[in-house]
Amino acid sequence: MATDTRERILDASRVLFARRGYAGTGIKQILAEADAAFASLYHFFPGGKDQLAAEAIRTSGAMYQQLVEGVLDAAPDLLTGIIDCFAGAAETLRATGYADACPIATVALEVASTDETLRQATADVFASWITALTTRIVSVGVDEATATELAISTIALLEGAFVLSRTLRSTVPMTAAGQTATEAARAVLKRAQS
Amino acid sequence: MATDTRERILDASRVLFARRGYAGTGIKQILAEADAAFASLYHFFPGGKDQLAAEAIRTSGAMYQQLVEGVLDAAPDLLTGIIDCFAGAAETLRATGYADACPIATVALEVASTDETLRQATADVFASWITALTTRIVSVGVDEATATELAISTIALLEGAFVLSRTLRSTVPMTAAGQTATEAARAVLKRAQS
Repeated sequence: MATDTRERILDASRVLFARRGYAGTGIKQILAEADAAFASLYHFFPGGKDQLAAEAIRTSGAMYQQLVEGVLDAAPDLLTGIIDCFAGAAETLRATGYADACPIATVALEVASTDETLRQATADVFASWITALTTRIVSVGVDEATATELAISTIALLEGAFVLSRTLRSTVPMTAAGQTATEAARAVLKRAQS
Repeated sequence: MATDTRERILDASRVLFARRGYAGTGIKQILAEADAAFASLYHFFPGGKDQLAAEAIRTSGAMYQQLVEGVLDAAPDLLTGIIDCFAGAAETLRATGYADACPIATVALEVASTDETLRQATADVFASWITALTTRIVSVGVDEATATELAISTIALLEGAFVLSRTLRSTVPMTAAGQTATEAARAVLKRAQS
């Protein structure tokens, strides 16, 4: 039961921080969504909102990575996996009224110049995503430097398309970015395998 | 003098909203930075913080577009212009301690699901950037659909790299994204001119 309360607080935080950002999300709002008492926040997160946000960022970053790795694992090859990730992101945007996108980018931009603890949490998540994708690209025969550049560019295309698609309330940017990511990956894989 | 106060409030707002976001920027902080009295805010912006933010977003979006168009105009060709834009963004990130990036993305992600007035302001800015870049790409002989896709992908790469470079405090993502944007543009231009 105690663990349930802690998890409910984290669940509510992940959703609210992703959709409204860090400063725009109030503690009262989190507790109301989580159906939790004020005392439980400081019981489970003695460091308050900052500690809660750092844990929300790290866990939602890991959950999103797991989701993406699941899509890549289910695909017959890496190129198809990348196509599926962008198509899935577009479908999720459409299905949620352009609310659900990257779980940490909103907070990442807010805190980059103002909160070193939270910046580090967001940096660790992005670094983990880049490493995981780089490893997959290396595993199909691409050299480390080229794989790193392709992994970073693929994630940049996804992040940039999230900004544009949420703002414009359209899947067109996600589809265009997916096309460019696919072409970039195809060119790299072709060079590596020739 | 009155106009000066209005401009100082807008200048301070543009910088603070870009670096700290909408919810994270207080009216008191804007007025302190602008050296302006509380009454002047409601004198010049009767709609308060929301009206001020909408005008800050529209004007900083237009200023940034002018900056980028200047870089593109100064380059001997479009491909070199795109390379110069990404190199310039990397240099600005480094020179400002990873603070100065896209002037509106932080607010865009915060408001996309919560504030229709501000979402529309950020959408108008991105739409204007996409149209301007598409027009340039069409002018060198690329068909409209391909040009739109390349323009969107180039802006997505820039926006995504801003998120990653600010968060990781590194120019590596901006350089990688610039490389991918250049290769995408080179491929499109080669097909159009062959």
